[in-house]
Amino acid sequence: MEGKLYIVGVGPGSHDHMTFRAKQVIEESDTIVGYDTYVSLVEDLIKGKEIHRYAMTQEVERAKQCIDLAREGRIVSLVSSGDPGIYGMAGLIYEILAESGWEPDNGLYVEIVPGVSALNSCASLVGSPLMTDFAVVSMSDLLVPWDIIVKRVEAAAQGDYVIVIYNPASKKRIHQLQDTRKLLLKYRKPTTPVAIIKGAYRDSQTIVMTDLENMEKYSDQLGMISTVIIGNSSTYNFKNLMINPRGYTSKYNLESTPA
Amino acid sequence: MEGKLYIVGVGPGSHDHMTFRAKQVIEESDTIVGYDTYVSLVEDLIKGKEIHRYAMTQEVERAKQCIDLAREGRIVSLVSSGDPGIYGMAGLIYEILAESGWEPDNGLYVEIVPGVSALNSCASLVGSPLMTDFAVVSMSDLLVPWDIIVKRVEAAAQGDYVIVIYNPASKKRIHQLQDTRKLLLKYRKPTTPVAIIKGAYRDSQTIVMTDLENMEKYSDQLGMISTVIIGNSSTYNFKNLMINPRGYTSKYNLESTPA
Repeated sequence: MEGKLYIVGVGPGSHDHMTFRAKQVIEESDTIVGYDTYVSLVEDLIKGKEIHRYAMTQEVERAKQCIDLAREGRIVSLVSSGDPGIYGMAGLIYEILAESGWEPDNGLYVEIVPGVSALNSCASLVGSPLMTDFAVVSMSDLLVPWDIIVKRVEAAAQGDYVIVIYNPASKKRIHQLQDTRKLLLKYRKPTTPVAIIKGAYRDSQTIVMTDLENMEKYSDQLGMISTVIIGNSSTYNFKNLMINPRGYTSKYNLESTPA
Repeated sequence: MEGKLYIVGVGPGSHDHMTFRAKQVIEESDTIVGYDTYVSLVEDLIKGKEIHRYAMTQEVERAKQCIDLAREGRIVSLVSSGDPGIYGMAGLIYEILAESGWEPDNGLYVEIVPGVSALNSCASLVGSPLMTDFAVVSMSDLLVPWDIIVKRVEAAAQGDYVIVIYNPASKKRIHQLQDTRKLLLKYRKPTTPVAIIKGAYRDSQTIVMTDLENMEKYSDQLGMISTVIIGNSSTYNFKNLMINPRGYTSKYNLESTPA
């Protein structure tokens, strides 16, 4: 008898922001697979289950093992932080299943459990940066050529999108965000608000509110669990918050005194 | 004594995909405010509480009442589906607070509770469409001039972004998605995969998998609770799923037989 495969997003790391469905499928599972750090996020939910912890670069092995275990009859949760549907493991699982002749309708049961991704959690902590159209761009050029990423940053700048940057930098990957900043400064004011969020909703959470001009001073805030939000032409700062107005002010004339 | 104001995203509509924090703050609240349809989504959680239901066009009244009630000492949850930080009520609340001289650090306590937004929930239902960079665009030109939206669609096309479209159409607002389709056909193949998701995770859920060429045939699927996901140059269909590969195939040589 075949088992089931859940690809589960547990949200930003605090159980508060996990969904009921995520907890439910983890509890139902007899087998937990995941990158070591992600497995640790749900340590208290998985006692007594079979646990397979992986290092970060073993995505293909992780995906194949999940599928194999589920086909052997296990109920497997492949856990990750955030939402596995956004730059996550959902794609690799489906790619491998597709190549193996899987039938979605009557083959192995697979369910993606969506979660609160970095764009959702980080936005909630810094104000209201995503009230208008936004582009989500990863700075990781491990799997996407850098010239394509540059083209996307330029397109986002031309479209006056708010920009949410995933994977802004790692120890070895430094120039990408620096290049992005320089490119954006051709289109946006140096005072454009920028938020750098590290470890959202974790005990280690730190938030820096800065701007395009000064963001380079905070390179120590960048890393694997950091997200950067860069405002568009209408984003402004209020105290330590980043506000993107959704046009309401002009439409509804919120202001009671002349500007 | 001042109360608290929670701006709460309850996810796509099924309680399964609500976060624990969302449920917790709704339970803690003595007063619930929201657009009538959103309040109905949490009907079973709010028995005995004071409830203020609003029609859809009363955003400013809704926001001001929430703030007033919280300042009078109430613990208020302003509820909405999805994530209030994405095209939601977070912005209007902060805009009104900013104008009233609010101090985030020692004034009224305000918390945005992020939720599973349409981009997260819809992606999870149709495969793995968001494995690469994506742009999120609302077709509503009530608050954003249409020429700006057109500029953004064109920029997203030029950047080869996967595109997630919020508010694709309403009874009176028809041409915007049709124009977007025509514009995208200048840049993308007619066979580019398109998913139209209506009422994700609700009992009424319907999903149509189509392509740029044929999407106009499904205008009956469009409305207030619909989301459209349009693939980029590397998105492909597998059975009834939409897969965006994250470059793994070329990097890891997943295929075991020569193509």
